[in-house]
Amino acid sequence: MIHGGAGTWECVDSDPEQAGGLASLYAILGQGREILAGGGSALQAVETCASLLEDDPRFNAGRGSVLNADGRVEMDAAIMDGRDLSAGAVAAVGTIANPVRLARLVLAHSPQVMLAGAGALRFAASCGMKQMPDEYFVTEERLRQYRDAHRKAGTSGYAGPADPSGRARDSGTVGAVARDIHGNLAAATSSGGVTNKPVGRVGDSPVIGAGLYADNASCAVSGTGHGEAFMCTVLARTIASYIEIQGYDAARAARAGIDYLVTRVAGWGGVIVIDAAGRCASRFTRGNMIHGWIERGGAAVCTCVREKTAVPE
Amino acid sequence: MIHGGAGTWECVDSDPEQAGGLASLYAILGQGREILAGGGSALQAVETCASLLEDDPRFNAGRGSVLNADGRVEMDAAIMDGRDLSAGAVAAVGTIANPVRLARLVLAHSPQVMLAGAGALRFAASCGMKQMPDEYFVTEERLRQYRDAHRKAGTSGYAGPADPSGRARDSGTVGAVARDIHGNLAAATSSGGVTNKPVGRVGDSPVIGAGLYADNASCAVSGTGHGEAFMCTVLARTIASYIEIQGYDAARAARAGIDYLVTRVAGWGGVIVIDAAGRCASRFTRGNMIHGWIERGGAAVCTCVREKTAVPE
Repeated sequence: MIHGGAGTWECVDSDPEQAGGLASLYAILGQGREILAGGGSALQAVETCASLLEDDPRFNAGRGSVLNADGRVEMDAAIMDGRDLSAGAVAAVGTIANPVRLARLVLAHSPQVMLAGAGALRFAASCGMKQMPDEYFVTEERLRQYRDAHRKAGTSGYAGPADPSGRARDSGTVGAVARDIHGNLAAATSSGGVTNKPVGRVGDSPVIGAGLYADNASCAVSGTGHGEAFMCTVLARTIASYIEIQGYDAARAARAGIDYLVTRVAGWGGVIVIDAAGRCASRFTRGNMIHGWIERGGAAVCTCVREKTAVPE
Repeated sequence: MIHGGAGTWECVDSDPEQAGGLASLYAILGQGREILAGGGSALQAVETCASLLEDDPRFNAGRGSVLNADGRVEMDAAIMDGRDLSAGAVAAVGTIANPVRLARLVLAHSPQVMLAGAGALRFAASCGMKQMPDEYFVTEERLRQYRDAHRKAGTSGYAGPADPSGRARDSGTVGAVARDIHGNLAAATSSGGVTNKPVGRVGDSPVIGAGLYADNASCAVSGTGHGEAFMCTVLARTIASYIEIQGYDAARAARAGIDYLVTRVAGWGGVIVIDAAGRCASRFTRGNMIHGWIERGGAAVCTCVREKTAVPE
C-alpha cells in the first residue's frame, strides 16, 4: 500500500491533477509489485516506493516538499523493518533528494535510530550520498504557497498549521507499507512537513510509533495528517497494539486508530495498514487520502475517496 | 517518582557517590511533594523535579551531560501532560541549562511538539531563554569519559554504545512522573545521551511514546536505558497500552514492558510508572536504577537496587 497525503487533494473526478497523482500511484505500485513478486523484501519495496513518491514533485516529500519559515526545504523520513523492529530515521534535513534512502542507511549502517539536521547530513556524506541544490526541490507551486503563508503570518513568522479547509495542498506526507512473500512487514514515511513551519520542527514522519510502525507480530502502518496529533497519540504504535493485544484485523485497527485520533485530540489524517495476514486497510478523516493498494497479489486499486475496509461500518 | 538513570551507578552501599546521588533524590522528591501538597499540577511537579535533576552534575542531563563526538553537550528532553496528551520536546540542543524547561515552553507556546537543533535554540531565544557557555555543562569526569571513548573509537569516530558492563556511568537519563491531587498525570524525561555519540543523534528521551508518556486514562511513564531499544519498542506507549487496553496496574505494566524490551530487542534499561490510581512502580534490568518515590503522600523512598512493585514475582 502507498499513500500521497490526506486532506490535501481536490478529490473530484474532473481534476486533472488528481488524475496525474493517481496515475503516478499506479506506476509506483507496479514497481512495488515487481520487487515483491521477484522475492524482494518488504523493506526494499517500501524504500523504493517511498523514494519514487519523493521523486514526484506532486507530493510533499523529497522533490516538491513545502518550504519552511526560512523559505527552504527541511524534510523528515523514517523506515522500519518488522522482522526485528530495527529502524532508521532522519529529521529536519535539507539537500537530500531521498530522505527515506538516508533513513535506510541509518538503519543499515548506524547504531543510532534517529539523526537530525547537520549531524544527519554529516552521516549522509560519510555514506557518499550527494547533496542537491535548493533548486532541485523547490517548485513554483510551493513557492507560491510559501509566499501566501508568509504574508498571512505577518510579523509573527508562523501562521499555525496551514490547510484549515483540507484543500490547501500544502501539507501531506507520503508513505508505504508492504508484506513480502516471506511474511515480513515493513513501513516507510517521508514528508516535507507544513508550509512556513519553524526551522527545526520535527513532525511525526520520522518518529517510530507516530508516523510509522512495523512489526511482523502485528502490522505495518504509515500515517499522514496533522503530525503533532499523530505524535501525541503515538498513533501507529497504538494501531499496532490493537492488533497485537486485542487481536483486531487491519481494517478494524485502522478504524479504531482514526477514531482514537479524532476523539482524544481532535486530530485529522489517515493511515494505511497491512496486517500479518496480508489484509490491507485504509482509514481517513476529511473525506480524502490519495492512496492505493495491491492486496495479496491482486489488482492494483488507487483512489482518493474510497477507504479500503473489509469490516462493515 | 523520579529517576537518575539505569545501569550506570555502582550500587554498593560503601560508594560515597551513590550516597550523594540518593541524598539529591531525597531533596528533589521533597520539592516535588511541596508542589503537589500545595495543590500544584503534576506538570509543574515533573518540570521542577526534572530541572533540579538537570542542575545536579551527577546526572547525565543538563549540567553534567556527557559529551558527543565533537566534545560538546547535545541534549534531548520532553514533557507531556496527561490531561490532554499535549507535549513539548527538544532534540539535540546545546547551551540550554534546562532543556526540560524549554520543552515546557514548546508545550505551552508553540503549535509544534518537537523542535530540533538550531531551530529549537531560535525558539528559546524568542522566549527570552538565555544560552549558557560550554563551561557551564562540562565536568571533569565527562571530559575524561569523552577522551577515553574517543581514544577507543580511534579513527572510526564512534565506538558504539558505551557502557557494555553497565558501570561506565556515561549514559543514563533523568526523569519524573507525577499524579496531582486533581488526579492529573504528567511525565518528563531529559538526557545528555551517550558519550561520543554522533552529532545530531536523537535518543528516546524527546520522543513521545518512547522515553516518556502520560495519559490520565492510563499512566505516566519515564524511561532510561538503551535509547534506540526504547524507540524501536515505543516502550512508554507500550506500557500505557497494557494499562489502557488490558487493565494492568502500574507494577504489572512496568514488568510487562521491561520483559517486552528484553525479549523483543534484547534491550536494557528501566522505567518508573504511576497509574491513574496513584500506584507507583519501577522495573529495570542490569540490577540498578537510582530512583525514588512518594506513593500517595507517604514516606519518600530512594534506592538504587530495589524495585517498587506490589505484584508477587
